[in-house]
Formats: sequence, C-alpha cells, structure tokens
Amino acid sequence: MDRLIPKPEDHFTFGLWTVGNRGRDPFGVEVRPVLPPVRLVQLLSEVGAYGVNFHDNDLIPIDATFHERDAIVAEFKQALKDYNMRVPMVTVNLFTDPAFRDGAFTSNVRAVREYALQKTMVSIDLAAELGAEVFVLWGGREGTEVDASKDARDVLKRYRECVDFLCEYVLDHNYALKFALEAKPNEPRGDLFLPTTGSMLAFIETLAHPEMVGVNPEFAHETMAGLNFYHQVAQALEAGKLFHIDLNDQKIGRFDQDLRFASENFKTAFYLVKLLEDAGWQGMRHFDAHAYRTEDEEGVKAFARGCIRNYLILREKAQRFNEDPEIQAILQQLRAEGGDEPLLYSPEMAAALKQRNFDRVALGEKAYPYEKLDQLVVDLLLGVR
Amino acid sequence: MDRLIPKPEDHFTFGLWTVGNRGRDPFGVEVRPVLPPVRLVQLLSEVGAYGVNFHDNDLIPIDATFHERDAIVAEFKQALKDYNMRVPMVTVNLFTDPAFRDGAFTSNVRAVREYALQKTMVSIDLAAELGAEVFVLWGGREGTEVDASKDARDVLKRYRECVDFLCEYVLDHNYALKFALEAKPNEPRGDLFLPTTGSMLAFIETLAHPEMVGVNPEFAHETMAGLNFYHQVAQALEAGKLFHIDLNDQKIGRFDQDLRFASENFKTAFYLVKLLEDAGWQGMRHFDAHAYRTEDEEGVKAFARGCIRNYLILREKAQRFNEDPEIQAILQQLRAEGGDEPLLYSPEMAAALKQRNFDRVALGEKAYPYEKLDQLVVDLLLGVR
Amino acid sequence: MDRLIPKPEDHFTFGLWTVGNRGRDPFGVEVRPVLPPVRLVQLLSEVGAYGVNFHDNDLIPIDATFHERDAIVAEFKQALKDYNMRVPMVTVNLFTDPAFRDGAFTSNVRAVREYALQKTMVSIDLAAELGAEVFVLWGGREGTEVDASKDARDVLKRYRECVDFLCEYVLDHNYALKFALEAKPNEPRGDLFLPTTGSMLAFIETLAHPEMVGVNPEFAHETMAGLNFYHQVAQALEAGKLFHIDLNDQKIGRFDQDLRFASENFKTAFYLVKLLEDAGWQGMRHFDAHAYRTEDEEGVKAFARGCIRNYLILREKAQRFNEDPEIQAILQQLRAEGGDEPLLYSPEMAAALKQRNFDRVALGEKAYPYEKLDQLVVDLLLGVR
Amino acid sequence: MDRLIPKPEDHFTFGLWTVGNRGRDPFGVEVRPVLPPVRLVQLLSEVGAYGVNFHDNDLIPIDATFHERDAIVAEFKQALKDYNMRVPMVTVNLFTDPAFRDGAFTSNVRAVREYALQKTMVSIDLAAELGAEVFVLWGGREGTEVDASKDARDVLKRYRECVDFLCEYVLDHNYALKFALEAKPNEPRGDLFLPTTGSMLAFIETLAHPEMVGVNPEFAHETMAGLNFYHQVAQALEAGKLFHIDLNDQKIGRFDQDLRFASENFKTAFYLVKLLEDAGWQGMRHFDAHAYRTEDEEGVKAFARGCIRNYLILREKAQRFNEDPEIQAILQQLRAEGGDEPLLYSPEMAAALKQRNFDRVALGEKAYPYEKLDQLVVDLLLGVR
Repeated sequence: MDRLIPKPEDHFTFGLWTVGNRGRDPFGVEVRPVLPPVRLVQLLSEVGAYGVNFHDNDLIPIDATFHERDAIVAEFKQALKDYNMRVPMVTVNLFTDPAFRDGAFTSNVRAVREYALQKTMVSIDLAAELGAEVFVLWGGREGTEVDASKDARDVLKRYRECVDFLCEYVLDHNYALKFALEAKPNEPRGDLFLPTTGSMLAFIETLAHPEMVGVNPEFAHETMAGLNFYHQVAQALEAGKLFHIDLNDQKIGRFDQDLRFASENFKTAFYLVKLLEDAGWQGMRHFDAHAYRTEDEEGVKAFARGCIRNYLILREKAQRFNEDPEIQAILQQLRAEGGDEPLLYSPEMAAALKQRNFDRVALGEKAYPYEKLDQLVVDLLLGVR
Repeated sequence: MDRLIPKPEDHFTFGLWTVGNRGRDPFGVEVRPVLPPVRLVQLLSEVGAYGVNFHDNDLIPIDATFHERDAIVAEFKQALKDYNMRVPMVTVNLFTDPAFRDGAFTSNVRAVREYALQKTMVSIDLAAELGAEVFVLWGGREGTEVDASKDARDVLKRYRECVDFLCEYVLDHNYALKFALEAKPNEPRGDLFLPTTGSMLAFIETLAHPEMVGVNPEFAHETMAGLNFYHQVAQALEAGKLFHIDLNDQKIGRFDQDLRFASENFKTAFYLVKLLEDAGWQGMRHFDAHAYRTEDEEGVKAFARGCIRNYLILREKAQRFNEDPEIQAILQQLRAEGGDEPLLYSPEMAAALKQRNFDRVALGEKAYPYEKLDQLVVDLLLGVR
Repeated sequence: MDRLIPKPEDHFTFGLWTVGNRGRDPFGVEVRPVLPPVRLVQLLSEVGAYGVNFHDNDLIPIDATFHERDAIVAEFKQALKDYNMRVPMVTVNLFTDPAFRDGAFTSNVRAVREYALQKTMVSIDLAAELGAEVFVLWGGREGTEVDASKDARDVLKRYRECVDFLCEYVLDHNYALKFALEAKPNEPRGDLFLPTTGSMLAFIETLAHPEMVGVNPEFAHETMAGLNFYHQVAQALEAGKLFHIDLNDQKIGRFDQDLRFASENFKTAFYLVKLLEDAGWQGMRHFDAHAYRTEDEEGVKAFARGCIRNYLILREKAQRFNEDPEIQAILQQLRAEGGDEPLLYSPEMAAALKQRNFDRVALGEKAYPYEKLDQLVVDLLLGVR
Repeated sequence: MDRLIPKPEDHFTFGLWTVGNRGRDPFGVEVRPVLPPVRLVQLLSEVGAYGVNFHDNDLIPIDATFHERDAIVAEFKQALKDYNMRVPMVTVNLFTDPAFRDGAFTSNVRAVREYALQKTMVSIDLAAELGAEVFVLWGGREGTEVDASKDARDVLKRYRECVDFLCEYVLDHNYALKFALEAKPNEPRGDLFLPTTGSMLAFIETLAHPEMVGVNPEFAHETMAGLNFYHQVAQALEAGKLFHIDLNDQKIGRFDQDLRFASENFKTAFYLVKLLEDAGWQGMRHFDAHAYRTEDEEGVKAFARGCIRNYLILREKAQRFNEDPEIQAILQQLRAEGGDEPLLYSPEMAAALKQRNFDRVALGEKAYPYEKLDQLVVDLLLGVR
C-alpha cells in the first residue's frame, strides 16, 4: 500500500479555508474552533500535502493594519519553512464582505469595482511575494437574482475591464503569475455570470491577454449543473487552458457540498484522475472541500487524508486500466476502426466523399461493446478485477 | 391588440419537425398523422410565420432516390412560393438513423464520420439552393454513456476536423452560409460533448475559420442544466456569435420538453425578448418546440400561434419596461453610480487605486432596491401595472 | 386596486426570521442590523400582516435565563396587543445549535434526543401561552451525509417516538395545538429524512395519534426536488392533512432560495392560490421567505409587501379564471366527458366492463384542447385577457 | 468468484421489456431486431435469472384475437417450463397506446378510465393464470402538462376509485395477488401525479383495502428527483409496504436513463443492497433497465449479466461491512450512545425531562467520526480494504 502514501511530487494542495472550515452553514453556527494559519500549515504537512493556498483574508483579516499584516506574513513564511510547504496559488476574497453584496468586478457601483481591484492588486503582490504561480479569480458575487438590475452584456464588459486591468498590473510588475478563472452556476447568487468552465473559456478569448488567463474548474461546481466534469476539464486541457483545478465532490442539483474528493461520484472522479495522469498534468492537485459539520479536528484530518487517498487509489486504478489486456483489446479494436489520418478537406476529397456509396444499413447494424467495457471498469473500480 | 398580430418583418420561423411532430415519446407511439411538408408550409403561413426550417430528412426521406429528391424539392419550392415563405435555416439530421448510434462527427468509426460529412455536404447544397443563410449543426449523438469508450480530448479533435472540413466546403463553393452550433447537456446520450453554449463558444475559437461559425442557443437546452438562458444568449450576443436562436420552454432538470415558448418561465423569456429587441436582433425568431401529445391539428395550430403570441406580448412588455418612469428612475440611479468611463489600466491609475482609502464599511452599508425593482417587473408581467 | 390591499381575514402571516433575516449566507456575513422582535411586529403590521410566527430562539435567546425569558415574552405580548397581531403558529429551532449537528429527534445520541424533546416541550408551552393553533416541526438536521452512520429504518422509529411523545404531551396538557410536519429534500444535510410532503403524509399514518398531525408543505422545498408544489398541496388537502403552509419561491435544483412569493414560478403559484381559495382554506397564508442580501430595511418591507401583493394578484386571477366563459366552456366540456358517477365495483359491473367492446382506435384519436386552454391561462396571467 | 454466480434463490428477475428493448429513443429509431418472448425467456435463463415479468402487451399484442392470445400464452408457458423460469410479477401497459394520451385511471374521459379497468382486469387474470404474486401499477400517463385541465384533488379520487375497484376484483376472484404502485416524478408527462414513493405510501392509506397495496420503488425514478433511494426504500420497508422493487441506475435531474444496476451510483446501490439483505428481503430482485442503444444482442446479455453481477458484488461487500472490525467498532460506539430503551411518554418522564439540566455546550462539542467511517466504506467499495 506504499502507493497510497503521498509524495511531494504528487503536488497535493489544500486551501487554508478547507481544513480551516468551521462548519457554519445557512442553518447553523460554527461548530469547530478557529485554527490559526500556522497550525493549519502544520496540519496539512502532517497529512502529506505539498502546499497550501489561501484567500487574502484567510491569512490576513480584512481590517488588519499594515503592521499586523507584516507580522502575520512573516510568521506564515516561517511556518512554510518549518513544515516545508509551498504556496502555489493565492486568490482574493471578493464575496464575504458586505461591500460586495451586489458583486465586485460587475458591481453596479464604480467605487466597489475600484475597491475590488485594489484588494486584488494587494493580494497579487502577496501572491508574488510568496512565490505563487497561479492567481485564482472566483467571482462569488458576480451574479444576480434580479435580471432587471444589470444588462447581462454590460456585466461582461465590466468583468473584462477588470481582468484586463489585472493582467496589465501583473505584466507591469513582471510577476510570474497566471490567472485562473473559476466558474460556478449559482450560489450564493441566484445565477452567477459565466456559470460554467465553457463560458469562462469563451470569455477568456475576448480578453486583451488571453495567453495569461486560463481556468480553474471545480468538480462540485460543474456537477451542480449536472455537467460531466471529466468532459469539462478535457475541453480546458485540450485548449491549453487548464491552469489550476479544484478537486472535491458533490451531488447533482443541490447546494454546494464541497465533499471529500471521490467520496460520491467514483466513476467521474476516476476518469478525471486518469485524464490528468494520462495528460501528464504538471500543476497542482488542489482540494477545495471541507469536512462534514459533524467532525472535530480528528475528523478534519481524516477528511484531508481521504481526499489524498482517494486520488491515489484512482491513480493506481487508472494505471491498471491502461495495462488491462481485456480493456485495452476493446480500445485497440475501436482505435483500429477510428483511423489515424485526419479528415482534411480538399476539393477532390470532398467530391470523392460525396460520390461514395455508403452502406448505411450496415453502418447502422454495427454495434459497440460498451456494456461490456463499462462493466470491466466497474469491476476495476469495485476491486473485483 | 393589433400589436399581437405577427408581421413578416418579425421573422418568426418554425421547423418542419415542430408543427409536424407526431407525438411519439419514449413511452408512447405516434398520435398524430403524417402531414406532408407542403401542408406544413401552408399551416405555418396560416399562423403568421415568415419562414420554415428543416432537417434534410424532414423534407427528403433518407432513402430517397435522386429523382424522388428532385421532385420533392420542386414541390416544396412551389409551396414556398405559393405561401410566400422563406427558408432561412437548414440543418442535417445526424441522430435518428442507427448508423449514428455512437455519434456522427465524433464516432469511433471513420466510415461513420465520413458518411456524416457526406450527408451534411448534401444538406448544405440544398440549403444553398433554397437561399438559407444559416446552417445549424446539432450533434444529437455526439456524446457518451461510457467514458472509457472515447477520450474526451480526442472527440474534440474529430469534431473540429469535421467543422473545419465543412467550412472549407462552404468557402470552396462560395455559399453565403454561416454555421450555428447548438449545445445540449444530455439526452439522448447520457452526456453530450460541448454541453452548453459557453462550451460551444470556446470550441469555436479553436476552429480554422471561427468567423464562419457561431452558436444557436436553445432555451430548453440551457434550462435543462439550470442555467439562465438570458445570460447565455447575452454572452453569445456580446461576442458577436449569436447566429440563430431556438425559442421554446422547459422545466429545469428534466427530459427535453420543447414546450410552447414562454409558457413556463415567463420572467426569463421576458428578459430574453427584451435582450433581442434591445440589441436590434436581425436574425430569425425561430421556434423549436412542439405541441403536447394530447393535441390534434387544431391544437398544433394553437401551439404555434401561442409561441408567436407570447413573443409579441413580451415584446410589448419590454417596450413598456423601457418607458416605465418608475423602473427607469431606478435604473438611471444605478447607472449614475456605475460610472461611464471604463477602468483602464495605467501604472499611475493602479498606484492611485492602491493608495486610495476606501470606506469599506460605508460600501457595505449601501443597499440596492432590487426587491422593489423586481416587483415592478412582476407587476408589469402580470399586467397590473 | 382596492383588491390588492390585505385585510385581516386574508390571514397573511410571516415568521420573525423572515423579515428579521440579516442576509448571512454560506459565502457572506450579515449585511443587515439586528431588528428586535417588537420592531419586527410593528414592521409586519405596517405591511398588512395578520400575524407573526417564530422559532423559540427567534424570540428568546437559547441561553436566556427564566427571568429574561419572562421579560421578553411580556414585552412581546404587549407588542402583539399594540399592533393587533396574532401568533397563529410557533415552531422550535432544532438545527442552529452545535448540539444538533447530527440531528435532534434522530440523533445517534440519546441525550441529544432528550434535550430536543425538552426544548420542544418548552416551546409548546409558549405556543399555548400565546394562543397558537399550530406547532410546526421542521427537522433541519434530521438527515445524513454518511449512510453508514444510521440505519434509515431506525431513524424513523426514533422520529416517531419523539412525535408520539409530543402528542401525548399536548394531550396531557389539554393544549389546543396540532402539529404540522415540514419536509425538505436536502440542505443543510446531504439528504434529509422524509424528504417530501408525500413521505411525511405516509409517516403520519404510522403515528400513535395521526389525527393530531398534518403537514406544512413549503413551496421552495418541494420545488428544489423538481416536484409540482400544487400537486403536493392538493394531496395533503384531499387527505385532510394540510395544517399549515409555507409560501415562497425557488428555482428547481439549487440551494434553498426562499424567494419572495410568486416572484419566479408564476404559473404554479397561480394554481396553488386557486387551490387554496377554491378549497376555502381557513388556515394561515404564511410566508417563509426573506429579502435578497442586497436589501436594507426598505427592501425588506418591499419584499414583505410583494409577497402579499402577489398572493392577492393571483387570487384575483383565480376568480377571473373561474368566471372566464371561454376557459369555463372548455372545462365544462371536459367535465361532461368525465362523468359524475363514481366507478364502483360490483361483480356485475366488472363482468359487463370486461365484455364491453371499446373502440380503442377512436379513443386514441380523441384530442384535448390543452394548448388552447393553457394559452388562455397564460393570457390571463400576463394580463392580456 | 463463486459468490458472483447467481442462484435461483437469489430471485433475480427481468422484464421482457428490458432485454427486449430495441433502443428507440426520442431522437432515434429502433436499432435492435424484435426478439420474441420465448427467445427472451431463453436469454434470461442463460444469464442466470430466476424469473421474467411483463406488461400485458410485451407478450400479447394489444390487437390480438382471443385465439392468438391463447396460442401465445400456451407457447410462453412452455418456454417457462423449458427454461425453468417463473413469472413473479405482471403489470399492465396503460401508457403506450394513443387512447391513454391524457391518462388512464385519471383520464378526463370516463370511457378511457373504463377501458383502462378492462385492460387491467384482463391482465390480472393472466397474472393469476401464470402464478404471479405481485401486480404492478405504473401510471405512466397519470399526470399533466396543463394544470388547468384537471383538479389535482379530483384526479386522486379517480385514481383511488380505480385501485379500489381492482382490489375488489382480485378479492372477488380469490386471486393471491397484491398490488404494488410505482411512482415517478415526470416523463413522459410534464408532471406525474403521486410523484414519489412517499406520495404513493400516503395515497395507499386512503384506499379501501390498504393491506392489499404496497409500493414498487424504482431506483431511477426517485433519483431523477434527487432523492436518496436507500432512504425511500427504507421507509417503505419499515412500513411493511415494500411489495416489489425496480433496480437500475440513473443520474440526478435528467431523462429516465434505466442504466445497468449499480453502474453509476455505487454508494447508494451499496446501501440499498445492504438494506435488502439485512432486512431478509424475500421478494424479487427485479431489474428494470435496458442496454445502451450502442449494443447488439451480445451487449444486451452483457448488460443483464452486469446487473446481476453488480448486485452480487455489493451483497458480498455488505457482508464484509457487517464483519469489518473497524467499521463495526464505530457503529458499536454509536449504538452505545444511542441507547436501547425507547423514549416513551409519561407525565413523570416529561416533567423530569423538562427539569433536567442539559449541558448544551458539551453536547455541541461532541463530534462524530463520520469522515473516517465514510472513508472506510469507500475503501471497502473500491476494494482497497
């Protein structure tokens, strides 16, 4: 079971807000005590994490003075050193404070947009100071309940202005930072703008510096809308736009659950892990989840260990999938029929294709052994193969 | 009530398959007789439609001879002339025939992909012959139930190859046709590839001729995934990529209902109509819906008339929204706070912004009169204003 | 517009927690100040409410002394008198405190179940003291994320024990109180037990005193699961088990939104209002909703007024539906075919029925004018009829 | 792997319509040839089934003469004998024929309701003739898209009349048959009446012979509405009302997929199997699913074998769960805190409980090791334990 022990090169990371989650929800107050960031870094190192990520205010209270801020950062840096932990990603909280109640970059109030930019620039400076490579932007309040209040085209212009502004800021400061945009369909707003990874990918192409901006897909967020997360990540990867990823779990069509990775949708989690491994994903394997409200600190550790463990279990299964003779024989046969050469246009090719006499009925009688293939995967996942 | 009578310049169109729908569903057989295309054209002209759209096989049986095909097309052209109807859009059926049981452009079998291209080229020729401006591609079988069967990155390459091929074909023939890609999250496949309009918009940017390709968002399809259709269309419009639109209705999170337009989600339909009208949308107002299985031909006409009527009712309400003093006063106030000047980056601007002392608490105390605004819209929609 | 002004006999009520909601959500802190109960009673009287409901801890802090409790209750009674408001319903909060993190009546810890009973008995005493007629039980934590932790049969036994206990308590004290059980499919737990009004109705039949227990269906809760709220309430009404009702609004398949009544699903809200009015519903029209997080106190009032206003608008439309000659002509025709006599069994009747020669094809050709009927309702709702 | 070979006493059954499914869907025609019932019986015996179930018209065409009917039944009986197969359940198709387009037992047309009763009585006779023990009623068309068309209370009266009628019919003929009602939230109708197992359980209590009527919960149907199927079945079992069960699989919030059992929601399927086995379920393990449209006859067999195999895999895991020391230690500890004695009311007990001084804060600090417990189950399911 050595293969289920995490190594630094596995690049498992957690947010401070994940193991630091205190169990508050819409119908209940906090159940777990505050754990200071330094203690969270220690806890994460104990469970085998490679790094720790945070929102600005996970580390530094929103009303901290500069002096307090500096002391906190110094102490945090020492903890990173003590526990040999990195900070690969930083993000900014533009959703908790009442100032953002109607959005940050898409707010109807110019001063709020400006304040959001200030807060983000300050967070970017900190990210750069700590050596982060990715800066995530999740617009938790960029949405609406009342569509009369905002023209859904104008909000995109505002959103674009702010992201363009921040790209220039990073360029201007020669920071080695890329942005990763995170989509979510709804919650806490009735509808969030740019609700899926697809929407974000399309939006990025309209930016001034699309090369600096990619996506941070989250398992739970796409799953809330019933989308196949593996497909969503595949599109981002194929477009060269997967800059970060949020691993967790979720049931379709309900509130944001942020469950332990691979504790619910085993099959989709398996294909996702297989995709990342097959693609040689060099980025972080970041968990954005939290323990059930029933847990204490021991439970939080069990939760964190479970996230990592499930990734490693599925990684091993992905390897076995790639080596399984019966599975590979089916895939080999499918590939043989698929053909390797691309279907490239030429007038001659098109003319020939139009002339060709296809045996449509025979094509329709052709079957595909997918029940068998899927059952082999089920056997593999359930450990009876 | 003159404003509720459709005019040609309103550009209302229907598919042959909509008023020709025979009421078959997964648990029941057909309940309505076949109506030939010529009769459907007549029926549509009676209800006030401007044009009629179709899949190749709505008009021409898949196994028709060339001779039969020509006779059918000639008769259809005569009907168009007789009833003064246009064909603004044509599409190709790549989902009904057993040959496409595992996809068309993304099939694992090269011959199926080639046959799909042939079938599409032939349909494009017909579209051009009939003067259509838009060719819609809906990949009804481009998806999967078994993710082991297809690498979700490879399918995008295949999809792209085929769309690129077809763009070259259109260019090569100097056809004045643009493509509109239609997304759907699932059904009839477990998961369809490129499941949302956002995914499609992102995919288009990876094509060889992105300028020739836009989207055809469908109300029901985005709504199935719980997405805000008005937001989805707004993104497409803002990107200059709205080439066509499918109007109908649907409840969230269930089978594809294709209900009469604006018979379910009044509010979203209202904002959609307002968006199209405010944007001066020059394209078709195409209904992709069908009558309940309880109906006969009279019911089909009531259904079609209802689609048009609801659009016109909401268009009038959109106009009243734009003229309502109380609503506009709120919006005016919001705009005043929003500021007109864009937030453009300069080092000085960034530095000034970072220095500025924002009164965060005051920003957080600021409230927004959205309950009032939304109720004004509800009053407007319910006709008590 | 006099018909849109609420009267006491309309029986509109709100919970203290609705207009007192401070706008906290999973991603944001409170945005509105605390309003004391007395002020909330005043506010509700201003907007036209007949009564006010509450959870024990909406009025009395969970850690209040007996002395503090008595002072609060005395002050509250005076406010009720001052503003001529009643308390028709009281409920108990068994979900906010960490003690209930794994349930109250279904907790795995006996002491928690006992504490929950104590807390409920004390609340029942207060309900009786204030003259409430209905005591609502919503088991906000009666559920699970981890099905291994509880046998889903055993939890029903525990739940039943507690409800039976409380019925005996009420009988023993000669309180004129009935219980109303409230179902919810999920949130804050991954899955809640007895997740729909149907499940609750079935559960009630297994109690020791089913006659004392009915349901409190909530629009948002059934809608979260995509169920038709009008159908759910109709079943409860038909069974004589509608004891209370929670009016609000919600989009399908997402977090609990508690939107202003009839601000989203106009059609379902219309049929619901029509049902309550046609049935001569004598109970309360209780709103369990809250203002958007964007609002201040003015917005809260606009929200509360909107709930009432929408009910009254729809009530008027229900009356017009019942008087509309065209609609009623269709319904009359349907009724004529439906037959009035019940289909009662007798051996002779069964034998005759088995012998009868039905013209199945003719029955299948019979159509139903539902597109027309539905459009008449849409016209009515949109105010163009 | 002997434990994964089905035995007759495992009581695995399939409907004729499952392995006979021809792959038609809303967007595609049939892909598989008709297999006659006798061949399907043979196929089912080959995969290890114990019995076969059917709708009347799966076996006997709706327009068969009496003579044809008798010949078909005789041939079918011979096949049952030849392949040593039983018919534990029969049902009636009240949804395919156009006669039922607006419902059967709840139709607005009296003649349709009468014809539905006739068709059902004839099917019941056949069920009795073949020795079936359970007669399932699924009201595939008992629903609506247009709520104006039917009073949702009246439909329950009609539904009840018909079920009461059929109970009398069975009693009158001394048939040893029980009824099992099957719920579904929607599809093919916009909303189906009595949409969940809970609704059905409640409805049964209002019948004249509730003791003769139970439920037939279906995994896919409850899952469509996002409900926890294990919880739903547990309620039915606890009430003594589980008379039959439909095993398959499904993703939440989409069209009725009828996937191979336990091919999607491993965890819920596991708890379901554990529940049935722990409860000593004596009824059938009936699969109501079908092969993907990609399959041929070999694929259909792989599908059927997979359903059985997955049940047996999960049954073995349930046994291991019950024997796992670490899991059982946690459960033992939970049980110890839960207490064995029921909480029975007495005036003294209530008074004592009200007096008791609970340490609420200590109860709130108590944590539950559910992350650990759940991960042990994940390990068990994934075969790494």
